[in-house]
Amino acid sequence: MATHSDTRIKVGIVGGTGYTGVELLRLLSQHPQVELVAITSRKEDGVPVSDMYPNLRGHVDLKFSTPENANLEQCDVVFFATPHGVAMSQVERLLEAGVRVIDLAADFRLQDTDVFQKWYKMEHSCPDILSQSAYGLPELLRDKIAQAKVIGNPGCYPTTVLLGLAPLLEGALVDTQHLIADCKSGVSGAGKGASVPNLFAEASDNFKAYGVSGHRHHPEIVEQLQRLAGGPVGLTFVPHLVPMIRGMFSTIYARIKPEAMDTDFQALYEQRYAKEAFVDVLPAGTLPETRSVRASNQLRISVQRPGNGDQLIILVVQDNLVKGASGQAVQNMNILFGLPEQTGLKHVAILP
Amino acid sequence: MATHSDTRIKVGIVGGTGYTGVELLRLLSQHPQVELVAITSRKEDGVPVSDMYPNLRGHVDLKFSTPENANLEQCDVVFFATPHGVAMSQVERLLEAGVRVIDLAADFRLQDTDVFQKWYKMEHSCPDILSQSAYGLPELLRDKIAQAKVIGNPGCYPTTVLLGLAPLLEGALVDTQHLIADCKSGVSGAGKGASVPNLFAEASDNFKAYGVSGHRHHPEIVEQLQRLAGGPVGLTFVPHLVPMIRGMFSTIYARIKPEAMDTDFQALYEQRYAKEAFVDVLPAGTLPETRSVRASNQLRISVQRPGNGDQLIILVVQDNLVKGASGQAVQNMNILFGLPEQTGLKHVAILP
Amino acid sequence: MATHSDTRIKVGIVGGTGYTGVELLRLLSQHPQVELVAITSRKEDGVPVSDMYPNLRGHVDLKFSTPENANLEQCDVVFFATPHGVAMSQVERLLEAGVRVIDLAADFRLQDTDVFQKWYKMEHSCPDILSQSAYGLPELLRDKIAQAKVIGNPGCYPTTVLLGLAPLLEGALVDTQHLIADCKSGVSGAGKGASVPNLFAEASDNFKAYGVSGHRHHPEIVEQLQRLAGGPVGLTFVPHLVPMIRGMFSTIYARIKPEAMDTDFQALYEQRYAKEAFVDVLPAGTLPETRSVRASNQLRISVQRPGNGDQLIILVVQDNLVKGASGQAVQNMNILFGLPEQTGLKHVAILP
Amino acid sequence: MATHSDTRIKVGIVGGTGYTGVELLRLLSQHPQVELVAITSRKEDGVPVSDMYPNLRGHVDLKFSTPENANLEQCDVVFFATPHGVAMSQVERLLEAGVRVIDLAADFRLQDTDVFQKWYKMEHSCPDILSQSAYGLPELLRDKIAQAKVIGNPGCYPTTVLLGLAPLLEGALVDTQHLIADCKSGVSGAGKGASVPNLFAEASDNFKAYGVSGHRHHPEIVEQLQRLAGGPVGLTFVPHLVPMIRGMFSTIYARIKPEAMDTDFQALYEQRYAKEAFVDVLPAGTLPETRSVRASNQLRISVQRPGNGDQLIILVVQDNLVKGASGQAVQNMNILFGLPEQTGLKHVAILP
Repeated sequence: MATHSDTRIKVGIVGGTGYTGVELLRLLSQHPQVELVAITSRKEDGVPVSDMYPNLRGHVDLKFSTPENANLEQCDVVFFATPHGVAMSQVERLLEAGVRVIDLAADFRLQDTDVFQKWYKMEHSCPDILSQSAYGLPELLRDKIAQAKVIGNPGCYPTTVLLGLAPLLEGALVDTQHLIADCKSGVSGAGKGASVPNLFAEASDNFKAYGVSGHRHHPEIVEQLQRLAGGPVGLTFVPHLVPMIRGMFSTIYARIKPEAMDTDFQALYEQRYAKEAFVDVLPAGTLPETRSVRASNQLRISVQRPGNGDQLIILVVQDNLVKGASGQAVQNMNILFGLPEQTGLKHVAILP
Repeated sequence: MATHSDTRIKVGIVGGTGYTGVELLRLLSQHPQVELVAITSRKEDGVPVSDMYPNLRGHVDLKFSTPENANLEQCDVVFFATPHGVAMSQVERLLEAGVRVIDLAADFRLQDTDVFQKWYKMEHSCPDILSQSAYGLPELLRDKIAQAKVIGNPGCYPTTVLLGLAPLLEGALVDTQHLIADCKSGVSGAGKGASVPNLFAEASDNFKAYGVSGHRHHPEIVEQLQRLAGGPVGLTFVPHLVPMIRGMFSTIYARIKPEAMDTDFQALYEQRYAKEAFVDVLPAGTLPETRSVRASNQLRISVQRPGNGDQLIILVVQDNLVKGASGQAVQNMNILFGLPEQTGLKHVAILP
Repeated sequence: MATHSDTRIKVGIVGGTGYTGVELLRLLSQHPQVELVAITSRKEDGVPVSDMYPNLRGHVDLKFSTPENANLEQCDVVFFATPHGVAMSQVERLLEAGVRVIDLAADFRLQDTDVFQKWYKMEHSCPDILSQSAYGLPELLRDKIAQAKVIGNPGCYPTTVLLGLAPLLEGALVDTQHLIADCKSGVSGAGKGASVPNLFAEASDNFKAYGVSGHRHHPEIVEQLQRLAGGPVGLTFVPHLVPMIRGMFSTIYARIKPEAMDTDFQALYEQRYAKEAFVDVLPAGTLPETRSVRASNQLRISVQRPGNGDQLIILVVQDNLVKGASGQAVQNMNILFGLPEQTGLKHVAILP
Repeated sequence: MATHSDTRIKVGIVGGTGYTGVELLRLLSQHPQVELVAITSRKEDGVPVSDMYPNLRGHVDLKFSTPENANLEQCDVVFFATPHGVAMSQVERLLEAGVRVIDLAADFRLQDTDVFQKWYKMEHSCPDILSQSAYGLPELLRDKIAQAKVIGNPGCYPTTVLLGLAPLLEGALVDTQHLIADCKSGVSGAGKGASVPNLFAEASDNFKAYGVSGHRHHPEIVEQLQRLAGGPVGLTFVPHLVPMIRGMFSTIYARIKPEAMDTDFQALYEQRYAKEAFVDVLPAGTLPETRSVRASNQLRISVQRPGNGDQLIILVVQDNLVKGASGQAVQNMNILFGLPEQTGLKHVAILP
């Protein structure tokens, strides 16, 4: 087994007590080319991971350790499933040791450090590293990711909105000043922190909007949309909370430009994503539902144009914890290490 | 008690086995001016209503009866909680007997009988009565309702979209060609019929859109919007299904006209609905949630204008079975019989 | 109105920010004989109650105030919807002012102060007052409640288990050494405190037991059962958590004594509770469900004896926040002030 | 690939449109030693499986076919995910063709054909084949399964109750006349048939018991318990419905015999199941929850003895569609074909 072990990717996870952490553990423990070597939590030091997450009993034998004892420098790659600001404080040391870094928080998502500071209320501590990092959305930036040493894994909402709009903006087919993304997320997107609004008795049998006046994913989406459009973009973004554990559904509205009214949008999307293993363009007339991707890395897109008018509706679903977070992070790892992108990510969604 | 009884409104319900039926029973059995005299169901003839709906044990002693035995002609008002097409087949006979009719189905919602026939796949059997009926949305058509003998109780989606957009269209303040209503409904809106997509194991922990290519409430909304706007209106309408029992949330997007950019929209809505007991315009900056109206006849509206731009977002919540159906029907009955509009409808919403 | 106001009961609530608090407000704001005069929360001082609980908008105009400013001494009755230990620290002062006290926490539930201290980790500060208080389960102790100045409102689990077992123990019909109560509660029973296990993403789509090795309601149930049985009682009590907001379901197993095998248990229960407005013994063969009592003060009981053997199964449902807490507290208030017991408590359960 | 294909097990599924069918497809499509060759549904003939179950898009290319066209005789094994009575009508033909049969319905669960006829309202059509079939609970009957040509896959409730009680009955440690199984199931256990009680609006935010006077799994459990006990057994069995999609939780009560009071029950269970990959005996003091096994073939058991008394509580969780149905069927297939029992069944449970 030594030989085999030698060729596997040594993986460390910093801050593995939250939902993206346990989801990384679920995926990585079943990944054929990965050796999990450390997972850190200062608070849970010494506690077996499977005590906190009983689904891992029999699958993951690791205990949480302090960052100091984790020997992360000996890893090939370290995932940060931490609050914003942690990864950027540790990345330099790891890069010096030759370790690649995938941050599931926001430290390496926004290239504009002023925007970062405005929304995350902290100064960016390593703008040089940031400028060389890659935004980890493989379907848009695969080549850059392959070359990067630091990956900023996208937010959950941005993944759906960007993959939903990319074909339209790449083709300059719609009015980019009045885009609308009406997005709906399962409650796990809010994380595992104890908070009253996310209690079962508060969030169940209820539906609400939040962050209408401003949400951190808004500037992230806009920055990437502007890169795609090659100019300023206007986006109205309204996130909502759905009483379900996992799942994200984005209903995106775009007005077709007069000169693009003859476009076959169904064909456009099918061709754009023809080679993408994780983006499934549904047949014309088919609508997606979040459970069709539950616990899988799949993202599904439906293109709708009612009455063949000028209003296009793009419907996108994903599992916010997989393609919207940990699955995408593993996908990025596969790219970084030259593995087939689907390695360890072929799970069939759980339905019902 | 005889004297008291004489002054109470004698009420009959046709087809009371569905969700709007049981909700009518819940509301009417607690209404101080109502005497429930008959409820019909051919299939359940002779069965106590409370056998089917145990929440009514101790509150409603009626048994289901056949329409023939129900003596509906002796009622003051008859509610139809039936499939589309039933009310219009019976209304003439009841009107001749001096009975007023409130239909919770679609027979008296659309004034355009061609549109009705297109969407409901049946010819309208009494266009003359239809033309004299009132569309039962009190906040828009109270005077007409008070004079009518037949009320077409609005659909659940239309109630939210119409009350959400009325102040804007009445004031000609927005682009009426590109209105968007992104609506979300609890599963009870689909009724009590046994169907696979509405099973718990299908609808729970899931979110989906439906009817994107066409939904019966679309022409109903458009007909009323056009009346308000005094001309053609373009509306994109996308209904979604939320894993909750009751509740409806509509996120409405409208573009402000250049000449209306100085409007104080918060004040506009507050003034428009200042006298409406059942329409609550939330304070600026406050967002609604469906549970704040659960099991009550309240509808709440929030007006949002991110960044003071040209995109207005109107958020509307209601309980689809109350203000969206049976509660509104009772409100219409109160108007018909000259009662204070809140009579029997002051229930506080259930939270949590 | 002055005259009317004079005859209404002046009510204060201490600690109204939790679920039993908002439920008291819902019920009391619709109670025809109550005038809400104060609600305290040191933390929310000055905040309108309806800002925290938007369902109360238009129904309750009160603001939270500090206990010091609340003038609770001028109330006729004060409800404590506080953590354990608060009521007993303030009750003496209120009693001296002639105010009656209903505590929804545990301070006046257990007569045995040693048991209290063991389970609640605090010494009882007023055993004299405790000894004169009444355990507020009207169907068992109505006369004592009517005479008391302090009421200890029962726990939610005890209400179901005690009313479920009372007829059997009063008649000495079952083996009292091996009673089993397998109880299931909705998540609101855990209160509104922010805690990870009660997050939606943790509690939804999940079922678990808790407190198997010991739960505070166990000694409370046993103390009352022993009173009923006139001797020691052995009870196995296993609480479980159900992914629903409200509702409690207790499945109780008792072995029929050989000499009682001829008992007509259905008749026994029907007769025992014939005059009780809030206890509904279901017809033979009918099983209860929690939604049949959702948001109402009703408790329903079904008596089952499979194969006419020696094993009796008693199934009991209630809304844990109403008959299991705030509704029962209002019922106790009605008794204290000589009102008909159903006053303000006739709400029909919400179904669906 | 031909060589590889030759060594894989050719699998057919009869009646794959229900939940056990789609779950078989999810598991078998990821099973490294299986080749899916046919899935039948007369009604859906010609429809791609992934049209009905979009989670299978990209994973299963099969179309439904009629039984006639499915060439099931060329399979190595055929699973019946059909209503009761179908498998026994087709099994003879398949056995003659050398095909092994695993029935997920009840045709080969009960050895006593009179009991079968009483509960399933049909005569058993092949008692000879029945008598040579094996009851497919590997942890109890592995050797018999390995030799059998026909497997009757256990019901979901029986799997939990039998594995929960086996160590106690094998050791004759408890009173077998008064066993109690208080069981709770997710709604998917009721199948995918359209029925009002299983609608989201009926089953959500609700908890109820059902089948108290008699449930088909009762005789199945008793038959196996009696085999284990070597004599008559008395079991009270109360199934309940939990508002969750998947998951089963059984709370089992057994009275310890006086002579067995010194038993170390924790050690007993740990030893009994030490070699079982799919039975996880939790550490003392740990309680199970259903989500810890969601979408996995794991079953977890906790042994509780409050106060070291004579009442034992065994808590068992499983996913009703996996270990309680399709996963167990695949486990049986692995045994039948001499594969390591965990092949294709190592999925980590989905949490959250």
